[in-house]
Amino acid sequence: MRARTILLNNRPQGMPTDDTFKFTEIDLPALQEGQVLLKALYISVDPYMRGRMSEAKSYVAPYKLNEPITGGVVAEVVESRNGRLPQGAVVLGNLPWQTYSLSDGTGLTPVDPNLAPLSYHLGILGMPGLTAYCGLLFIGDPKPGETVVVSGAAGAVGTVVGQIAKIKGCRVVGIAGSDEKISYLKQDLGFDEAINYKTAGNIQQALAAACPKGVDVYFDNVGGEISDAVYSLLNNFARIAICGQISFYNATSPPTGPRVEPILLKTKSLMKGFIVGDYVDRFGEAASGLASWLKEGKLQYEENVLEGFDQLPHAFLGLFKGENIGKQLVKVADYSAAGR
Amino acid sequence: MRARTILLNNRPQGMPTDDTFKFTEIDLPALQEGQVLLKALYISVDPYMRGRMSEAKSYVAPYKLNEPITGGVVAEVVESRNGRLPQGAVVLGNLPWQTYSLSDGTGLTPVDPNLAPLSYHLGILGMPGLTAYCGLLFIGDPKPGETVVVSGAAGAVGTVVGQIAKIKGCRVVGIAGSDEKISYLKQDLGFDEAINYKTAGNIQQALAAACPKGVDVYFDNVGGEISDAVYSLLNNFARIAICGQISFYNATSPPTGPRVEPILLKTKSLMKGFIVGDYVDRFGEAASGLASWLKEGKLQYEENVLEGFDQLPHAFLGLFKGENIGKQLVKVADYSAAGR
Repeated sequence: MRARTILLNNRPQGMPTDDTFKFTEIDLPALQEGQVLLKALYISVDPYMRGRMSEAKSYVAPYKLNEPITGGVVAEVVESRNGRLPQGAVVLGNLPWQTYSLSDGTGLTPVDPNLAPLSYHLGILGMPGLTAYCGLLFIGDPKPGETVVVSGAAGAVGTVVGQIAKIKGCRVVGIAGSDEKISYLKQDLGFDEAINYKTAGNIQQALAAACPKGVDVYFDNVGGEISDAVYSLLNNFARIAICGQISFYNATSPPTGPRVEPILLKTKSLMKGFIVGDYVDRFGEAASGLASWLKEGKLQYEENVLEGFDQLPHAFLGLFKGENIGKQLVKVADYSAAGR
Repeated sequence: MRARTILLNNRPQGMPTDDTFKFTEIDLPALQEGQVLLKALYISVDPYMRGRMSEAKSYVAPYKLNEPITGGVVAEVVESRNGRLPQGAVVLGNLPWQTYSLSDGTGLTPVDPNLAPLSYHLGILGMPGLTAYCGLLFIGDPKPGETVVVSGAAGAVGTVVGQIAKIKGCRVVGIAGSDEKISYLKQDLGFDEAINYKTAGNIQQALAAACPKGVDVYFDNVGGEISDAVYSLLNNFARIAICGQISFYNATSPPTGPRVEPILLKTKSLMKGFIVGDYVDRFGEAASGLASWLKEGKLQYEENVLEGFDQLPHAFLGLFKGENIGKQLVKVADYSAAGR
C-alpha cells in the first residue's frame, strides 16, 4: 500500500512556512497479526503543534526532523487483523499526517458514527471541546452573574468556552480579530459582547465598556497585550485559565511586558496553565456534558474544513493568521463504512 | 490624657522618607461607658503598610492624610469602662500609632500573657505567622520530598514559611540579601540552602545549583528578577503563592519583565495572590498549628525590636532596606499587668 505523508522538513525560526513541511510517499508493509490499516478521513490542525516543531522541551515531545507530523486524526479501518477493530470501524487517534497508516490499535478510540458527524470528534467532542470544558469549569469555575472573558474567542476552543459560560449563566465577552468573527460570536453564539482587537483602538477601554462589572474569569488562548487589557479589569478572586499563548508561539525570543504578579496580589487572583491531558480522569464527565448540550441544541458548532491532504500545511499556517472561525480541519477522504 | 501620635504627613512618591511621617500630640477625652484606655506595648511595622500610604485602591483602604498611621498593636488596658476588657488585660488590634488610644473594644482580641511573649502576637502567632501558614499550606500545598523556595526568606513571613516547609519534609531554599541572613537561615533555621542574591552573581545559576530537582513550590515575598530566576526552574504542576512584591512597592511606574504566562502554561503551574484575611475561616487551625510547633521547639522565632515610640518611622523604612532579620517591631512601653 502506497501512502502520502508529510514530514517535518526543518524546525521553523519564527513563523512556519511551506518549507517547514515536506510531502513524500512511502510504502506500507503488509498487515501483521494484530494490526489494522487506517485510512485518514479528517486530520486536525491545532496551535499547540507549533510547539512540537521546536526542539525545546515542552509538555509534549518535539517532532523529529524528517519524520511525519502527528496529530489528531479520525480514520477508518480499511483492513484488519485485529479483532477489536473490524473493517469499517472508525477510530480517533494521534496518528501521522498520512493518507494511510498502520497501527496495532494502541491509543485508538473507537468512534460511534451515529453519535455525531465524524469530524466532531476532532473538535467539540474531542480535544478542543474537552479543553474548553475542563479549563473553564475546573479552573475558571464561573458562577451565575459573573463576567467571563475569552480571547481567541472564535477558535475551536474559544467558541465552546463562551457557550458553556452562557449555559452557566455568565456575561460572556469574546475577543477576536475580524468583524466576521465578531458577528458570528454575537449573532450565532449568543456572546453578550465581542471585541475586534484589530479595530477597537484602545482595547482596554473597549473591554472596560464591555465589562462594566469587571472580569471574574479569563480564559486565555492568546496572551500578550490582550491579556494586559483584561488584567486591568480583574475583580477580586478572579480566575485565569491559561490555555494558549498563540501570540508568542512564533516569537524568537522570550516575550516581555507588564508584570502580572502585582495585579494577582492586589486582586487575590488565581492563574493556572493547563493542558487537556491534566484532566484525563474527568474526560467522561466532560464528554457526556458536551454531548448532552450538543443534543439539546445549547451548543452551536462551526467547522472550517479544507478539502484534500495537500491542504494540511495551508490549514495549519492559517491558524496563526486568524483565518479560521471555529475548528480548523482537513478532510482527506470520505467515510465508506465498509473499508476502502 | 495626653498621647503622642504619628500622622501620615504626605503620600510618598517612591521610597518613603522621614518626611512621610509627622509626630504630634493629642488630648484624649475622658472614658465613656463601654470604652477602654489602651497603652501601646508593641507596635508592628509591615511591608503591606506601604500600599496604604498611596492613594490607589488596593486590598486595604489607603491611610488618610494628616490622620494616624494604623497597624497591628499589642496594648494593655490601663483604664476600663468595658466589662469584657478589665484593667490589666492585654489585647491585639488594628490601632493607631499612638502611645495611648481609646477604643470601644470592637475588633480587639484578648491575648493570654502566659501563652508566649506578648510581642509574638504581632509575629509568629499573629499576622505574619498566619500568612506563612495559610499561603504555604493552602496554596503551596508542599509534599514531602518536594523543593520549596522562599524569597524574602529572612523576614517575618519567610522565616516561618521555610521552617513549616522543613516540618513538612521538603527541601527548603531561601533567598535573602545579606551573609548574616544566609547564615541565620542555614545555621539556626535549618534551611537546606540559602542564597545571598546580592553577592551570588548569576542568581539563576545559584538557584539551579541549590535546586537540583527543580522547584515545586515558590513562596514569593519580593517579585522581580528573583522570581524570574525561580520560574526558570519550575517543575510541572508547581504552585506559586504570591504573598508580597516588596521589590515594587516603591516603584513609580508599573514594573515590566519577562512574561510568566508561557512558563505557567508549559509547566501547567498555578500562581495565586493572597492576603491572610482570605483565610480567616481557617485561622483557628493555623494558630493552633503554629502554637503547637512553637511549644515543641520545631519553630525558631527571631524578632528585631527597636525601643521607643520615636523609632517607628525608622523601623518601617528599614523594611525596604533589608535591615531586619525576622519580625521587625517597636517596643513602646512595658507591660505592667495592672494598668498604667
